[in-house]
Amino acid sequence: MVSPEIIVNHRTGNYPIYIGIGVQNDCLDILRERIAPSSNHLWITDANVNALYGNAFGQSAFDHTKLICDPGETSKSFTQYHAALNHALDLGLDRHSTIFALGGGVPGDLAGFVAASFMRGINWIQIPTTLLAQVDSSVGGKTGINLSDAKNSVGAFWQPQAVIIDPSVLKTLELSELTSGLAEVVKYGVIMDVDFFGWLESNCDSINHLDMEVMTHLIRRCCQLKAHVVQEDEYETNGKRAILNYGHTFAHAIEKVFGYGTYPHGHAVAMGMQAAMRLAELLGRVPSNDVMRQAKLLQNLKIPHLFPAQHHTDLWDAMARDKKAIAGKRRFILPTRIGHVELVDSIAREVVLESMELASRPMA
Amino acid sequence: MVSPEIIVNHRTGNYPIYIGIGVQNDCLDILRERIAPSSNHLWITDANVNALYGNAFGQSAFDHTKLICDPGETSKSFTQYHAALNHALDLGLDRHSTIFALGGGVPGDLAGFVAASFMRGINWIQIPTTLLAQVDSSVGGKTGINLSDAKNSVGAFWQPQAVIIDPSVLKTLELSELTSGLAEVVKYGVIMDVDFFGWLESNCDSINHLDMEVMTHLIRRCCQLKAHVVQEDEYETNGKRAILNYGHTFAHAIEKVFGYGTYPHGHAVAMGMQAAMRLAELLGRVPSNDVMRQAKLLQNLKIPHLFPAQHHTDLWDAMARDKKAIAGKRRFILPTRIGHVELVDSIAREVVLESMELASRPMA
Repeated sequence: MVSPEIIVNHRTGNYPIYIGIGVQNDCLDILRERIAPSSNHLWITDANVNALYGNAFGQSAFDHTKLICDPGETSKSFTQYHAALNHALDLGLDRHSTIFALGGGVPGDLAGFVAASFMRGINWIQIPTTLLAQVDSSVGGKTGINLSDAKNSVGAFWQPQAVIIDPSVLKTLELSELTSGLAEVVKYGVIMDVDFFGWLESNCDSINHLDMEVMTHLIRRCCQLKAHVVQEDEYETNGKRAILNYGHTFAHAIEKVFGYGTYPHGHAVAMGMQAAMRLAELLGRVPSNDVMRQAKLLQNLKIPHLFPAQHHTDLWDAMARDKKAIAGKRRFILPTRIGHVELVDSIAREVVLESMELASRPMA
Repeated sequence: MVSPEIIVNHRTGNYPIYIGIGVQNDCLDILRERIAPSSNHLWITDANVNALYGNAFGQSAFDHTKLICDPGETSKSFTQYHAALNHALDLGLDRHSTIFALGGGVPGDLAGFVAASFMRGINWIQIPTTLLAQVDSSVGGKTGINLSDAKNSVGAFWQPQAVIIDPSVLKTLELSELTSGLAEVVKYGVIMDVDFFGWLESNCDSINHLDMEVMTHLIRRCCQLKAHVVQEDEYETNGKRAILNYGHTFAHAIEKVFGYGTYPHGHAVAMGMQAAMRLAELLGRVPSNDVMRQAKLLQNLKIPHLFPAQHHTDLWDAMARDKKAIAGKRRFILPTRIGHVELVDSIAREVVLESMELASRPMA
């Protein structure tokens, strides 16, 4: 069995992240080693992922323990959450059982909240199968479902017992899902690691061709960076986790105003990063060369990042209602250079509107 | 404002328990001091409690922020949980808001799980108004709702920011609610404090007359004892919290077989304590004099404690499905003397059945 590549520490213990081609085949061994040989379990996945990987990873013997959701955000509903809990109860799961989350962010968030709340919290193991989930949502213990259109408004911080990442599953992703994940990858470079940003600039071709060695390194580095941040601020209480929201003040507004799913989350984040970068530039906080580097890298990785041309005042209004806003105050994470960001609030409406306008035009 | 009487430590901080006549009038001051002056809030209570205390405690100004549930266990439903979350969302609560739980165990458990999961966890303050909630369920951070008939099968460990206990509200309790709470009070004496047990024996009359000074001392001591246990085992993982389940293996089975609500929880616990004591006696684990002392104290406090005369084999079967059972193994907390208990499993069916039989007959 492979050794864990990264150990994530948290308030009550730690968990390993396993990364490698074929590592998913070891998931039942990992269950036995990390939890208990006899732990019974429930797999939560979606129909697309199940069609591709439902018989892999040694799980074919456990078909009756599978809950297969519809693909997409609608499965993070209250109804689906209720159904999953009833399924767990019907299967006879107890406080020593384990939930496997196989899929992207949706099965991960749903399964995680089921694990967090069933019998006041049971074990769970994440097997993220999208790039976005591998580099972002599977690390940090955030779980949740949506309350009507209020995204992630119900959930818990609940750390898994292990995360198992097999980069080879990326080969079956649609291009838009891949570029959606890459937006968060670029984000890590901008917010905290100029060397990694430079490495991305040098490896665009290999990334675009899904070179497995390069993708394995990319995922490993992102998990390390994310782990570093969440270890400092496990429950999002001291502000250190806020840097992960670079681009997200705009992105959440885009998703709200244009409707969830109109743009893949990562694309909305890329648009938001562009607006944030232009905003930092307008405020004289960041060198122009860095503004150009971000735009170019997004371009070279084929990540859609042109900010929407319309509804800017609606977007401004929506920002005040963001979950991260405090008493209606809009908060922005803005770069001072590639590799460093700061929290800035109280920015004038006109300047924010201008940044959106600038970000909606292609750069040179 | 009164000073907190007890500080309960937990993994991520601590919280005060305020105990005293009239202390409920200070709850908005406590909110301001413990959380934030501007924190907006939602009160969760039930119709009975609201009729009695809905305009007290400085909360009359906040009528629009109240969620008034039906009294009783049915309000710990998934539907009510969903409604409460939507209410919180409609009121514009955010991650800095506060939930007040005003009432017995039902509003407490429901409100606690809403607080635990809304926006991945927000502040909450408990104002328990039944003796059972004051001496037991309001300390220790257990929250939860029922999944169809599986009690507390969904929930979280979520510690409040403060607990506010006003013994004067006990005067409006029905006798059965009072004796239900007293069963848990006697439990603390048997499991861990022979001196407190002796004090109870000496103060039955004052307790039966709800002497406020005596009741304040009684509540304070129970909160201290419960706090001591839960601090050692916050998430019920190392077994130290198990002693609190004295009488509960039988009680949960009684509630399941006879239907929830047939007996008040505390009465089922008193019956279970009697069966557990007789079981310990049958196994030669406890002196006969202590068996007598428990029966006599339950009698003198007018707590119904005669074990049901029927369905003993059904009860035996139900015990294997208890949440606390591990892989179907029945687990009993049995006294070795007043003030000390031990965990015992693998007891023969016939002996357990005989203990139920003995406990169903009045003691001399």
